[in-house]
Amino acid sequence: MSQTPKTPAKTSVLDRVHLPSDMKTLSDAELKKLAAELRTETISAVSETGGHLGAGLGVVELTVALHAVFDAPRDKIVWDVGHQCYPHKILTGRRDRIRTLRTEGGLSGFTKRSESPYDPFGAGHSSTSISAALGFSMGRELGAETGDAVAVIGDGAMSGGMAFEAMNHAGHLGKRLFVVLNDNEMSIAPPVGALSAYLTRLYAEGPMQDLKAVAKGAVKLLPEPFQEGARRAKDMLKGMAVGGTLFEALGFTYIGPVDGHDLDTLLPLLRTLKARATGPVLIHALTKKGKGYAPAEASPDRGHATARFDVATGAQVKAPSNAPNYTKVFAESLIAQAKRDERIVAVTAAMPDGTGLNLFAKQFPRRCFDVGIAEQHAVTFSAGLAASGMRPFCAIYSTFLQRGYDQIVHDVAIQRLPVRFAIDRAGLVGADGATHAGAFDVGFMSSLPGMVVMAAADEAELVHMVATAAAHDEGPIALRYPRGEGMGVDMPEAGQPLEIGKGRVVAEGARVAILSFGTRLAEVLKAREALAARGLAPTVADARFAKPLDTDLILRLVRDHEALITIEEGAIGGFGSHVQQFLMEQGVFDRGYKFRAMVLPDTFIDHASPAAMYRAAGMNAADIEAKVLDLLNVAVARRA
Amino acid sequence: MSQTPKTPAKTSVLDRVHLPSDMKTLSDAELKKLAAELRTETISAVSETGGHLGAGLGVVELTVALHAVFDAPRDKIVWDVGHQCYPHKILTGRRDRIRTLRTEGGLSGFTKRSESPYDPFGAGHSSTSISAALGFSMGRELGAETGDAVAVIGDGAMSGGMAFEAMNHAGHLGKRLFVVLNDNEMSIAPPVGALSAYLTRLYAEGPMQDLKAVAKGAVKLLPEPFQEGARRAKDMLKGMAVGGTLFEALGFTYIGPVDGHDLDTLLPLLRTLKARATGPVLIHALTKKGKGYAPAEASPDRGHATARFDVATGAQVKAPSNAPNYTKVFAESLIAQAKRDERIVAVTAAMPDGTGLNLFAKQFPRRCFDVGIAEQHAVTFSAGLAASGMRPFCAIYSTFLQRGYDQIVHDVAIQRLPVRFAIDRAGLVGADGATHAGAFDVGFMSSLPGMVVMAAADEAELVHMVATAAAHDEGPIALRYPRGEGMGVDMPEAGQPLEIGKGRVVAEGARVAILSFGTRLAEVLKAREALAARGLAPTVADARFAKPLDTDLILRLVRDHEALITIEEGAIGGFGSHVQQFLMEQGVFDRGYKFRAMVLPDTFIDHASPAAMYRAAGMNAADIEAKVLDLLNVAVARRA
Repeated sequence: MSQTPKTPAKTSVLDRVHLPSDMKTLSDAELKKLAAELRTETISAVSETGGHLGAGLGVVELTVALHAVFDAPRDKIVWDVGHQCYPHKILTGRRDRIRTLRTEGGLSGFTKRSESPYDPFGAGHSSTSISAALGFSMGRELGAETGDAVAVIGDGAMSGGMAFEAMNHAGHLGKRLFVVLNDNEMSIAPPVGALSAYLTRLYAEGPMQDLKAVAKGAVKLLPEPFQEGARRAKDMLKGMAVGGTLFEALGFTYIGPVDGHDLDTLLPLLRTLKARATGPVLIHALTKKGKGYAPAEASPDRGHATARFDVATGAQVKAPSNAPNYTKVFAESLIAQAKRDERIVAVTAAMPDGTGLNLFAKQFPRRCFDVGIAEQHAVTFSAGLAASGMRPFCAIYSTFLQRGYDQIVHDVAIQRLPVRFAIDRAGLVGADGATHAGAFDVGFMSSLPGMVVMAAADEAELVHMVATAAAHDEGPIALRYPRGEGMGVDMPEAGQPLEIGKGRVVAEGARVAILSFGTRLAEVLKAREALAARGLAPTVADARFAKPLDTDLILRLVRDHEALITIEEGAIGGFGSHVQQFLMEQGVFDRGYKFRAMVLPDTFIDHASPAAMYRAAGMNAADIEAKVLDLLNVAVARRA
Repeated sequence: MSQTPKTPAKTSVLDRVHLPSDMKTLSDAELKKLAAELRTETISAVSETGGHLGAGLGVVELTVALHAVFDAPRDKIVWDVGHQCYPHKILTGRRDRIRTLRTEGGLSGFTKRSESPYDPFGAGHSSTSISAALGFSMGRELGAETGDAVAVIGDGAMSGGMAFEAMNHAGHLGKRLFVVLNDNEMSIAPPVGALSAYLTRLYAEGPMQDLKAVAKGAVKLLPEPFQEGARRAKDMLKGMAVGGTLFEALGFTYIGPVDGHDLDTLLPLLRTLKARATGPVLIHALTKKGKGYAPAEASPDRGHATARFDVATGAQVKAPSNAPNYTKVFAESLIAQAKRDERIVAVTAAMPDGTGLNLFAKQFPRRCFDVGIAEQHAVTFSAGLAASGMRPFCAIYSTFLQRGYDQIVHDVAIQRLPVRFAIDRAGLVGADGATHAGAFDVGFMSSLPGMVVMAAADEAELVHMVATAAAHDEGPIALRYPRGEGMGVDMPEAGQPLEIGKGRVVAEGARVAILSFGTRLAEVLKAREALAARGLAPTVADARFAKPLDTDLILRLVRDHEALITIEEGAIGGFGSHVQQFLMEQGVFDRGYKFRAMVLPDTFIDHASPAAMYRAAGMNAADIEAKVLDLLNVAVARRA
């Protein structure tokens, strides 16, 4: 009542917690208050910055409990994926910067080693935390100066194969390790997979464990002599043994399910385990994504990712959209193709919304497969579908496709199976930063014999490339396109298959030719306008294909121009390297020729707006203009 | 008695089986005889060709049973890894070529789609079969012309994360699919992991299932109305429910364990399942690797891979070794470093022998981790060890490192963690063929910011590179080396850390410089000799590093020579592309310069001897010589 406007809710406990060590003197009652304040602060911060909201709200109590009981940074709390770490950041010395989340120069939206000693292992991709925590755990066994290792992993992330690999190894080693299974039945999309159904059975069949039973569950963790004495208590555990055998089979002591929002359960449980656990323990905590913020709880994705919003109403502040985004254009184009060809099927690895396949699934529920967070399987499953005669589109973000690289080589490319890879989020992606950059796919795909690699220059091109991929039965084919909105170009009524390995000239010019691969084309055309004002308008072409190369077009551009520049939204080793190798083999450089391949620089670029990231990469219109002028030996006053 | 010498044992049944369809009229007694003859034929063939023996002998009865009951090629039998497929090849129209196994132009040592319609999905790498079979299965659900799908997967391969991903998805979908778990407790090395211990418990706690119980186990597979009637039989199943809950948790009907060598069990079981299964079924079959051939059964690796051998004694015919092989040099060098630095630890993904880490483990059992067939986990576990302050060497073959690519990017490179990647089997590998080629690692590693990438030119260099990696704490570093024997060079007493990013001149010459990365150096020096005879001896340098480049050395070579050639045992996008990009940025090509990057051609090269493969790739001494002469415009009569 006495609050002035804009002042956040009172945070009297939170204000005293600058680091987790400040929590050690708090009573349990104060810790509960701290959790409530932390939730309010998280909502307030994300309302200003946008970002991942639901996941963080789901682990507020877990975050408080872990930091109250364990001793970070000596103890290593490893957050899987890391998008649930905002409350953790607030408690670990970063509250003063929490409103800079995901902005240039500000805090990362994920955990990040270089940001804080309280982030012992960074993330962004899923299912890595148990492996990392086991590394810390075994390091300690061998004498490294490190404390306990705790992995906090969601039920969705648990479906990733490497989590299973890590559990299998941890159970084999049998050393002390804590895994908190944060089971919110909701990663980004509702979870799929038998594991998810299994987890549901675990808590459907068994009542939620209260602290008393849980503490008794710890009996088996006691040192052996004590166990004998406490053997009688074991009978009382029988009621607990409703499930968890999957984890027990992997060598873990399973405890749960417990209410992940009940500090009266979490605190004594973690204290007991911290004091007594000797081997790997899995704590199955049930949480609610978006917990405690009604608009998030009510939204279909539980407030997974949000723009800035009004705290009172939950209404998001979104910039008006001018052009359709690539993801939606892909989805609609695929639906159009699938209407004409019932062999077309689609595969996503837990990203139905992000890839647009939710739209496809609405039209063709039987022909759309969400395999869970399982990119390796997604690729080989697609290869199996292709081998059976279907026409699979395997839609995976560039950065996550790295997870299926061996399967692309071994199961698709070597066998020349016609799997269509729809590679969304190609290039630099903005607020998600370096872990999500789609920088390497052009290189790692184009080096594979028989692979066809396309990049869409705009949303109309994307329509045609989907048609091209649908029609290409001779072997694998990939199409890449960026995150975000298209250019606003006129859209074709229907996609027309492109001739494989043929580019197009977009604008004729003189002296210099620029051969663009992907959506840098817009920047190239901007640069062309600026250069035209100097009477130096270059020829601009769109390569469309990094593989096979349009060698006729390339040779013509070389023949008719003093210099050739390639540009792509990717690292060295991709399109530019292939063009260069071709020109070299043709002997073009023997007699002297000015060629430049503009690629992403040899650094991981931190989060910022995509435009700012491309500015940092030196790949915006001004950079292209400067490159042309430099090649033409035109002296210019460089902008500051 | 009446047999002439060299005639194999009588194969009266096998002689009548040219294709699986010929087996349909055989009685069970004849099928048993067929199995015995098939075993003899397999031993006989491998004794002449060498290759994978133990795995095939372990699945002779399974192979006969599967082909007797299922209808290949309409039904799709997918062999995981594929090195157990020799008996399958003999039964599927390839007996006449079985003695060409793994030789140039002969049969592949793995399943291969292009070789036979009975190989519906090729393999070589592990853990892919369930994904592929599920693809066939769902293709059929959607109308593709394909029959049943059966995956045959070993217990080792089952520890690979993608097998778990596939099970999780298959259990979720709930459609008819057969998975035969070929549990021989032995992949290449003894299996590790909690899963393995779990499987052991399954058959330790429960007696082996005979046919009667198994057929009853199929009760739950009956259509629902029948189930009601048969409910009483369920009581009899209780005894079976000793285990399998892990697989049941994933949505599979678990049957077993059964004796995988007992056709009296296998045939009726598979017939029942073929007739009645409606959802995913896992058949847990116990087999013995090397079964039925005493020398294989007695060997530590159960006859996993063998040279040609004498059938009577099992004695292998091995060429005398002239030089230490790279694997052993790596292992001994690592042991030497580890003696001086207790922070050094080693990680292998189920390849302790292949990587030489078995030697390391003997000396440092606590510091060596075999994580199972789990490359994703191996990489991130190594990253966790590095983050804890240890100095991990993660030893993975080039081709298998593709499995951990995302983890290299996301967990190691972005975080600049000092993980040392020891990349064995770099380049073309010979008899294992295209699936095992180490062709892409230079490209996919060198494109990563902050990664250091080395290749050893000979075994002495390898010693120094191990020392270099051990000392490099600033970030990740990789060293690659080929399969097989070294050059026989003098060995240093101790490894000395090399200066990062510095190469060396091996031989001074004139006009042309050849900058070699890796063990092509020997061929380069051979070419130099031939060229010297013409008075055209080139300068030869060893780059040592693909990243960072030795730019001083490169510029000096350019300055002092008319032409520069790079050569590497890798595909486009690697060392040559990096050198080329550097020269381009320096403007070297603007004024005309002869540069050639010799890389692996843009094809997958089939199995042959490594020398023959490199001949096919155009990367032997004669090719290098020709390239030099071509650059110098020396007309030569090309050899045929």
